[in-house]
Amino acid sequence: MKAKAAVLREFGKPLEMQEFEVQPLGAGEVLAKVVAAGVCGSDVHIWKGEDPRTPVPIILGHEGIGEIADLGSQKRDVLGRELKPGDLVMWERGIMCGECYQCVIAKQPALCSARKTYGISVSCAEPPYLNGHYAQYIHLRARCHFLKIDPEIDPKVLVPASCSGATATHAVEQAAVKPGDNVLVIGPGPVGLYVLASCLNRGAGAVYVAGAAPDKQRLELCKQFGAAGTLNVSESTPEERAEQIAEWTHRLGFNVGIDCTGITASVGEFLQYVAPYGAYLIPGIATPVGQLPVSLYEHLARKNVRLQGVWVSDTSHLYQAIRLVLSGRFPFETIVTHSYPLEAANQALDDMATRKAMKAVLEPWE
Amino acid sequence: MKAKAAVLREFGKPLEMQEFEVQPLGAGEVLAKVVAAGVCGSDVHIWKGEDPRTPVPIILGHEGIGEIADLGSQKRDVLGRELKPGDLVMWERGIMCGECYQCVIAKQPALCSARKTYGISVSCAEPPYLNGHYAQYIHLRARCHFLKIDPEIDPKVLVPASCSGATATHAVEQAAVKPGDNVLVIGPGPVGLYVLASCLNRGAGAVYVAGAAPDKQRLELCKQFGAAGTLNVSESTPEERAEQIAEWTHRLGFNVGIDCTGITASVGEFLQYVAPYGAYLIPGIATPVGQLPVSLYEHLARKNVRLQGVWVSDTSHLYQAIRLVLSGRFPFETIVTHSYPLEAANQALDDMATRKAMKAVLEPWE
Amino acid sequence: MKAKAAVLREFGKPLEMQEFEVQPLGAGEVLAKVVAAGVCGSDVHIWKGEDPRTPVPIILGHEGIGEIADLGSQKRDVLGRELKPGDLVMWERGIMCGECYQCVIAKQPALCSARKTYGISVSCAEPPYLNGHYAQYIHLRARCHFLKIDPEIDPKVLVPASCSGATATHAVEQAAVKPGDNVLVIGPGPVGLYVLASCLNRGAGAVYVAGAAPDKQRLELCKQFGAAGTLNVSESTPEERAEQIAEWTHRLGFNVGIDCTGITASVGEFLQYVAPYGAYLIPGIATPVGQLPVSLYEHLARKNVRLQGVWVSDTSHLYQAIRLVLSGRFPFETIVTHSYPLEAANQALDDMATRKAMKAVLEPWE
Amino acid sequence: MKAKAAVLREFGKPLEMQEFEVQPLGAGEVLAKVVAAGVCGSDVHIWKGEDPRTPVPIILGHEGIGEIADLGSQKRDVLGRELKPGDLVMWERGIMCGECYQCVIAKQPALCSARKTYGISVSCAEPPYLNGHYAQYIHLRARCHFLKIDPEIDPKVLVPASCSGATATHAVEQAAVKPGDNVLVIGPGPVGLYVLASCLNRGAGAVYVAGAAPDKQRLELCKQFGAAGTLNVSESTPEERAEQIAEWTHRLGFNVGIDCTGITASVGEFLQYVAPYGAYLIPGIATPVGQLPVSLYEHLARKNVRLQGVWVSDTSHLYQAIRLVLSGRFPFETIVTHSYPLEAANQALDDMATRKAMKAVLEPWE
Repeated sequence: MKAKAAVLREFGKPLEMQEFEVQPLGAGEVLAKVVAAGVCGSDVHIWKGEDPRTPVPIILGHEGIGEIADLGSQKRDVLGRELKPGDLVMWERGIMCGECYQCVIAKQPALCSARKTYGISVSCAEPPYLNGHYAQYIHLRARCHFLKIDPEIDPKVLVPASCSGATATHAVEQAAVKPGDNVLVIGPGPVGLYVLASCLNRGAGAVYVAGAAPDKQRLELCKQFGAAGTLNVSESTPEERAEQIAEWTHRLGFNVGIDCTGITASVGEFLQYVAPYGAYLIPGIATPVGQLPVSLYEHLARKNVRLQGVWVSDTSHLYQAIRLVLSGRFPFETIVTHSYPLEAANQALDDMATRKAMKAVLEPWE
Repeated sequence: MKAKAAVLREFGKPLEMQEFEVQPLGAGEVLAKVVAAGVCGSDVHIWKGEDPRTPVPIILGHEGIGEIADLGSQKRDVLGRELKPGDLVMWERGIMCGECYQCVIAKQPALCSARKTYGISVSCAEPPYLNGHYAQYIHLRARCHFLKIDPEIDPKVLVPASCSGATATHAVEQAAVKPGDNVLVIGPGPVGLYVLASCLNRGAGAVYVAGAAPDKQRLELCKQFGAAGTLNVSESTPEERAEQIAEWTHRLGFNVGIDCTGITASVGEFLQYVAPYGAYLIPGIATPVGQLPVSLYEHLARKNVRLQGVWVSDTSHLYQAIRLVLSGRFPFETIVTHSYPLEAANQALDDMATRKAMKAVLEPWE
Repeated sequence: MKAKAAVLREFGKPLEMQEFEVQPLGAGEVLAKVVAAGVCGSDVHIWKGEDPRTPVPIILGHEGIGEIADLGSQKRDVLGRELKPGDLVMWERGIMCGECYQCVIAKQPALCSARKTYGISVSCAEPPYLNGHYAQYIHLRARCHFLKIDPEIDPKVLVPASCSGATATHAVEQAAVKPGDNVLVIGPGPVGLYVLASCLNRGAGAVYVAGAAPDKQRLELCKQFGAAGTLNVSESTPEERAEQIAEWTHRLGFNVGIDCTGITASVGEFLQYVAPYGAYLIPGIATPVGQLPVSLYEHLARKNVRLQGVWVSDTSHLYQAIRLVLSGRFPFETIVTHSYPLEAANQALDDMATRKAMKAVLEPWE
Repeated sequence: MKAKAAVLREFGKPLEMQEFEVQPLGAGEVLAKVVAAGVCGSDVHIWKGEDPRTPVPIILGHEGIGEIADLGSQKRDVLGRELKPGDLVMWERGIMCGECYQCVIAKQPALCSARKTYGISVSCAEPPYLNGHYAQYIHLRARCHFLKIDPEIDPKVLVPASCSGATATHAVEQAAVKPGDNVLVIGPGPVGLYVLASCLNRGAGAVYVAGAAPDKQRLELCKQFGAAGTLNVSESTPEERAEQIAEWTHRLGFNVGIDCTGITASVGEFLQYVAPYGAYLIPGIATPVGQLPVSLYEHLARKNVRLQGVWVSDTSHLYQAIRLVLSGRFPFETIVTHSYPLEAANQALDDMATRKAMKAVLEPWE
């Protein structure tokens, strides 16, 4: 059996369609038919060669949802339900060793020392080749973690949960948002919307969102998700923003800031508005961005504040993100704005790069 | 009744001895005879006018141990024991409101919005005047928290617990050091030694200490406290230190770094050696030090690391610090290297400034 | 000035109306006009003399909302806003010492060793007399914690937040409900409804509620609050319940059970359905109920489960409960089913005892 | 190659020596030469057939230390060090699936739904046969977690860390002992001594130990480990114990009780002495012991106390236990009181059953 895939052979060059021979499954391995693959904002960076982890050639795509096509041996999902061909499933995008310090002592497998990610750090040059989601099938390694999905749901809606959503729930977990907290989310893209929803889902008293001009429509969407207020960075001065924040927080500052922009300037502006004992998390930083001058006394020490990185996610965060979408509380169906056939992967990447699409998905079987 | 005190009238000028009239005690207030007052490293900064919180004139001194001289009304220590004149006691150096967001919602009174500290932020210009420890008596406000001390202990030994020690246990609590963790302490002064002891006391697997040349003797002292190894920053290159750290930690990095130096360059060098999911705390930063360029991707995001300020401490940390000293596990008696009568306060400050003394105490009644 | 109040002179006998002279305010004290007072389920127990803390004579009522009538000195709410006569406010019902081990070391003032509660443990026999909420005015002690309330809100709706709601958020905090958790709430009264809402507000994946026959209507209300399913204990066998729970949880059990019934039999039945590493909390147990035989191996040890008491709440929980109501996410207006003038306090108690009312409030000024 | 082992064929009957053919190693599997195997107190229960998990025939023994004899493929320890034949190593005694809810969502693999334990729940009737530690070799499954041990250490001393020690560090972790806490340990056997050491290692202010008469010598040993006081249950009345505990804790009670006895009567006596917001853990309960009547109001609800089971441990706890022993702070060499050759396994079990030995080890190669 053969499977088509969109392959990146040279950074910055268009992906090319290629056929791969599906390989036999080893014990514990699973072949999944890719029902929908997400085109993540970071895929644009990966495509340009800005992510130090990425080899070429590679089948891009680390987000997805699929159908069990075949199983190398009997297998259950994380809730103990046996998996059968035809089941709609989602899976953890990271391949972890399960034996290193991070996996078994720190119990933070997101930082497994041997972690590989489908579509980011596993080349298609070696068997089993089908190591990314921009493809008809993906060959999932032994000890991949699955969650069965009710087939009545539109699978596209769940796609962003597999990376944007899981990273967001991880960030919110690390932020330790408490009931009643005031939160500022910076960057209203897919990660930002999941962060917003996830903060409300943890009981945040009020969540505000800051974003730049092209995000005007996105800021409106944030209100539909439940944002208590928004700051349009393109239509206000820093002083106006400072004043608005002071008013929102009774001059106490935000208990938590979660910056999903990936831009140092954003951290430079908003870190100062964190309340005493608060936290500023930067899940948006996923590729090298240089250095930011940080006022150690004023912004960290004097207020006992932490500035913290958030790196990817593990299966527990994926589980949280999926349950968040399934709760029906938030209009997650609005995030996926564009769908494409697999062959239009380059167009999808382009529409993500130009921000025409909030989140694009490929549907290899449509 | 009158009490002598050493008063700072103008920043950078010598303290002057002055007599104050002891004021009548209100309900809940306590007059304590200062048995020993600590000369903290930060007193040197305060004396120079580098701490934005400090008014003049002021009686310096925020560390101390004393004897109950008189009580405004019946009073118990935090363990419920009634206080009587003559009891040896220690007390919380901060005056908290008990009513603000930090005090009652966040339950982090170290950042009480109305916090004042004896010897740092309360002038002696207004009654009850005796608001610092460089004095024969201190007039402690209502709702001051006390812990009775066994009178058989040399009171001098406990003095640094009241600020250096409490700040250190706060830092270690915030760092969430876990049994088996590898820790790097930077800066082997009084706070650093308390941090070292406190980390071991929380089960750290190994604690290493880095310090500069004048600290050679201090690095030796660290070994007596149980340090598993030391780095003399003045006698090694950054590359040698990197290699030593890699060897100590099996190239995983430190789970926790606690920087007690107060110097941005130190943070700039050692932040990079934090292990994934680790923390770098900066209790040493207590006055403005400018900005440090931080590599957001490499040092924070990619490793899910946090860089965190630690601001002073509350009564729970003081309690921990005192129990740490009383456990007898560590040679805390070595920290106080110099004692002076109250009248020699200027000499004591000078010996702290030149690092001749590790920790000086004043004994107003000797 | 005089104020009317409903006084319990002898346990089990009708409350009697009495007038008290309003006392002058000391520094920090506040006189509040009681806009609405809650009649808590535990008031019925207190009235019968089943709560070991309660003296007579006493003005009952520990829940309430009011208007600032007068201030003994300048005062701010927990968000730092200055209080003025006429402000609508809520306040912490417990009077804590702020100096004991629980207050300052454990930072759990709900168990302050000197804790008194308006309407439960402070008699009206001594000044300032007005120590309960079934009254026109309440005389609040110094260091009472306030939160200003937007006057556009129907104050009655917020009343149950001051005890039922705060106890519920405390229980959910102690339970450490995580996003995605499956929760069982037992007992769909006011505390149970707040627990249900609070669990969803912390991201619980699904919350189920069990209750007895008279609670049929209450079980319906639970669904309006977002319960994923209900168990009518009066119309099912234990075996049927076991099977339903197994199905709901994929045979993993509940991550968290929160029992608001106050009945040992309920704990005896549902404790066994807790999942490994889960928790079973019993905020419903507020008066002595005797002993429950617990299978230490099967229900606790083998599954690493905890069975935990929850005792009242502190200001942080009150703050959470109020923000929960104000979020508008849940139909809290349905909880208060009956309102009465102050003079009808006995009728209100009776309607609570017979479960005719879910939650009654007195409105002394209507 | 053949390996001798001591096999339990029928519960309660003597173990019999048997030879097994060593099986070829699959990928990730490891053959370890058993240098020393621990005879755990629970082995006596298992031998009598009191543990519901145990099949026969079985090679007993779930504690041990060994030397790498052969590797099925390249392998690293949890610190990333490559394993080679001849390396002295310890390993996790549980075999976990790495794919279930407990393993990947709750991240508590001690309660993996498919967990098997060498020497407890894996029969020797099926290949690879060598599934317990009372043997010359043990055949360790793929994804077993290892820690390399410095060969200069007496391996016997470390043996109890693999079960008693790991369970103890797990209990102390669950108890969340904080610096300065007062702790009561009940049952001064191997688990109790590790709990005592581990509490001190987490900064407990004072740890007290209660034990029965035959434990008099053991109570002495507790003092060598650092116990601040002991209670001999056989030589005191409950009233005397109550009084002593009140005195030790200033009538506040213990912050934490950790009961290692496995006896319900012990829980029945000491649970009541837990301080408000405290915890009582029961790691001693490892086989069915019936029901204990618990006063829900007085002992749990009124004080916000939790009664909690502790089930076995995972690799993180093993790591903590080993580092605890290697710290050299405690005289762990005193725990192993008796050594036997493999052939004397029945004698060793007998000496554990009669409490002649505190902890026995088998040395199959001596």
